[in-house]
Amino acid sequence: MCIFGNMARNSLSARFEQSVTLDALRSYIAEFLSTFFYVFAVLGSMMSSRKLMPDAASDPSSLVVVAVANAFALASAVFIAANISGGHVNPAVTFGMAVGGHISVPTALFYWISQLLASVIACLVLRVTIVEQHVPTYTIAEEMTGFGASILEGVLTFGLVYTIYAAGDPRRGPLGAMGPLAIGFIAGANVLATGPFSGGSMNPACAFASSVIAGSFKNQAVYWVGPLMGAAVAGLLYDNVVFPTQSVDPVRGVSEGVGV
Amino acid sequence: MCIFGNMARNSLSARFEQSVTLDALRSYIAEFLSTFFYVFAVLGSMMSSRKLMPDAASDPSSLVVVAVANAFALASAVFIAANISGGHVNPAVTFGMAVGGHISVPTALFYWISQLLASVIACLVLRVTIVEQHVPTYTIAEEMTGFGASILEGVLTFGLVYTIYAAGDPRRGPLGAMGPLAIGFIAGANVLATGPFSGGSMNPACAFASSVIAGSFKNQAVYWVGPLMGAAVAGLLYDNVVFPTQSVDPVRGVSEGVGV
Amino acid sequence: MCIFGNMARNSLSARFEQSVTLDALRSYIAEFLSTFFYVFAVLGSMMSSRKLMPDAASDPSSLVVVAVANAFALASAVFIAANISGGHVNPAVTFGMAVGGHISVPTALFYWISQLLASVIACLVLRVTIVEQHVPTYTIAEEMTGFGASILEGVLTFGLVYTIYAAGDPRRGPLGAMGPLAIGFIAGANVLATGPFSGGSMNPACAFASSVIAGSFKNQAVYWVGPLMGAAVAGLLYDNVVFPTQSVDPVRGVSEGVGV
Amino acid sequence: MCIFGNMARNSLSARFEQSVTLDALRSYIAEFLSTFFYVFAVLGSMMSSRKLMPDAASDPSSLVVVAVANAFALASAVFIAANISGGHVNPAVTFGMAVGGHISVPTALFYWISQLLASVIACLVLRVTIVEQHVPTYTIAEEMTGFGASILEGVLTFGLVYTIYAAGDPRRGPLGAMGPLAIGFIAGANVLATGPFSGGSMNPACAFASSVIAGSFKNQAVYWVGPLMGAAVAGLLYDNVVFPTQSVDPVRGVSEGVGV
Repeated sequence: MCIFGNMARNSLSARFEQSVTLDALRSYIAEFLSTFFYVFAVLGSMMSSRKLMPDAASDPSSLVVVAVANAFALASAVFIAANISGGHVNPAVTFGMAVGGHISVPTALFYWISQLLASVIACLVLRVTIVEQHVPTYTIAEEMTGFGASILEGVLTFGLVYTIYAAGDPRRGPLGAMGPLAIGFIAGANVLATGPFSGGSMNPACAFASSVIAGSFKNQAVYWVGPLMGAAVAGLLYDNVVFPTQSVDPVRGVSEGVGV
Repeated sequence: MCIFGNMARNSLSARFEQSVTLDALRSYIAEFLSTFFYVFAVLGSMMSSRKLMPDAASDPSSLVVVAVANAFALASAVFIAANISGGHVNPAVTFGMAVGGHISVPTALFYWISQLLASVIACLVLRVTIVEQHVPTYTIAEEMTGFGASILEGVLTFGLVYTIYAAGDPRRGPLGAMGPLAIGFIAGANVLATGPFSGGSMNPACAFASSVIAGSFKNQAVYWVGPLMGAAVAGLLYDNVVFPTQSVDPVRGVSEGVGV
Repeated sequence: MCIFGNMARNSLSARFEQSVTLDALRSYIAEFLSTFFYVFAVLGSMMSSRKLMPDAASDPSSLVVVAVANAFALASAVFIAANISGGHVNPAVTFGMAVGGHISVPTALFYWISQLLASVIACLVLRVTIVEQHVPTYTIAEEMTGFGASILEGVLTFGLVYTIYAAGDPRRGPLGAMGPLAIGFIAGANVLATGPFSGGSMNPACAFASSVIAGSFKNQAVYWVGPLMGAAVAGLLYDNVVFPTQSVDPVRGVSEGVGV
Repeated sequence: MCIFGNMARNSLSARFEQSVTLDALRSYIAEFLSTFFYVFAVLGSMMSSRKLMPDAASDPSSLVVVAVANAFALASAVFIAANISGGHVNPAVTFGMAVGGHISVPTALFYWISQLLASVIACLVLRVTIVEQHVPTYTIAEEMTGFGASILEGVLTFGLVYTIYAAGDPRRGPLGAMGPLAIGFIAGANVLATGPFSGGSMNPACAFASSVIAGSFKNQAVYWVGPLMGAAVAGLLYDNVVFPTQSVDPVRGVSEGVGV
């Protein structure tokens, strides 16, 4: 039943074939749905808080709205996809998993496509139904440099991906049952810490989709470079330094879901 | 002990008989109580935030009040009914379960009656004890069309029911222990995302009961059509596409609770 | 090791003896500590929000402060005492357990003493260290009658105690691991629903202690009659109607903790 | 595989040797990372809420921002380090564990170094990237005495460390899976209760690092004396009175993580 049974044919074409099996397709759908729910809640909550305080977003309770939406939505989104696709819900997480060798490069590419597509469609639904408001784009505070914001986003994503690695580790034992919660909670805490400064995205898909709809890609690099770097460092650190694996499971992510 | 032991007599009358056994009645009481607690908290929190900010509900912290009440109350309500009635707490969820074949139509009807009755009584308690304020009704933002609001509510309920399907899936393993939390959290995130636009109901019982008490059924269709459609799509998608079942358990919902 | 081994001597004096064993004393200490932490957080959060908004408590974010403190503190307090004393943290819960026969009357009395003592000491610590502010007392909204407030508090406590019964039921299986969370969450949701109307106490110890420190027992009956009635109804309903027990465990509460 | 296999050589030098094994070093890294994420979120959230309400921090929603960041970040930070280093994330917790004999003194010192270093670096990252604002320091309310604030912080840390002892107790059974949540939640509740009075630090590393960056050590003693005393009392009380251990596990903390 395992799509990775024939590990001898480890060539690129074999890896690609593994990425288009029925089980893999189910992973992409799961990733699509989770990312859709997450991006819908995050961007929707930004529009909600702006609707309730139209002039300026200068109130801590607006930040609470967005951060709690982030935490709750991510915990749920990871939960529903956890044992199908691994519950990445985020291109940076997929990148971190690919760097750590837990997911093959072709599969990662299909994950990215699913995630970006889901984000854009979530934005479109918001744009079409909520006629009066524009979908918000992520912006950095006036006084910040793009470099500083990239570092902040990188640090945030580092924490997020490290937590995802920890949550997905089967050595956690019974504690693992609260993994999706821990992932949602660190995302929420990170938004509370940096929302008014760098936006607290941690998720290139969010920033990408809102920019596609708005037609403005200003500061887009901030939401890609930082998170991808942070994710890669987190994966390498977890696997090699803090919690080295003796018996490596060859490919995490897809493989976890297929046998269920 | 199982009320579904005699699957040969699968006629409508047999199904109806199954719906009035002692175990089934216990399910209806559980559904009644959970829906009562949920609707009481959701509509009560709306009244609370209006009391604390009487002139206009234009503050993000009002939204936090309602969304957190929704998340906390739904997680608890699902938890207490989970292994008696399945913890639907929502006519749309029951509809989605019936469409997916996890609950028989007569049982679903009794669930609906329990849920609607509980909602109306919860509203009555609030109306009678809190003399000065009216029970709020769900409204959609001025600039929105009824069609747009229906779509929004449908998308929200789609996410909610998909999560409920995922949470109730025995293939989750130990992760299943946080199922009620994930359900509550997606509801909270959805309220944060759309509260000021479509009301963020996702639950026809809430909207129905508050309309009964207020005597105004304006926009009522929005809170039925969208959620019922979303719930049906979620159930069909989960069961047939993302996570197809090899060995179907005949009737979920009631059956889960009877043997305990 | 079980203090209830000799069930033949089921007289009052024997029951009293069971209430003063070393294991029972540990239960009282656990109950004392959990109630102390809970009351400290709840009343402290009321003082905090009043300090941050001195003129009038008319802001939904004040309600969020108190409700989240309630939810978080109760979940933790129940968790740390769960397998020592059962984690009642509330005289009404102890009453509901005694009515249901899960705890003997003498033990319940010692629980009450521990809980009330802990509440008063928590208030004293707040009073002595935070010099400028008075410890707040629970009040009901101007427009409400005492009778209406009693009913509200009774309904709230009914929901809380029903959830505690459900959470403590060993038939929950793995779902039971989130029991303390469900208890904390329903408390938080209830505060959000009724805080500005009846105060959302659900816990006679909170109301009692703050009244002792303030020296004013106005409306005190509201916070005893409603909760005690609600708790008793919840216990009887859960045990006899919704989830009847075939093989009764003789005494819950203390007995759960002694063998560990 | 256990670094504590040779318990006969229980001299100080042997204990020191145990503190510099590869497994112990991994513990320090885990402690470093968790403390970094936690301090980053807590101090970042203070800066966020000040940015959104520059003039005065006199709004309950600012308190919600900091308290929720505290709760979410601590739950995640404890989770990711739980089975490597024990998840202390706090010098006071390490002190309490050392007093209770669950961790050796040299190991505790290395934990402290990791925690303090992580806190300072977290502050530096915030300081460097967010150019316009200063990292906030913990302050006590004008009307409070240093002694009163110490007592408050001591009580808070007492509750926190008692919960950590309870969460780490293997006798909890399946309930243990929500241990990190309970720890995060009591921290959040404590911040809601005392934030505007004593700052609600409970963690000397937070207060220390922010003072190092700001160059002002005013009231620093408040954030060390109270928490360390509270932590010691909590550990002794839990181990010796409420939940005495028959078969003592010699050294908790590091030992829990090495075998995994």
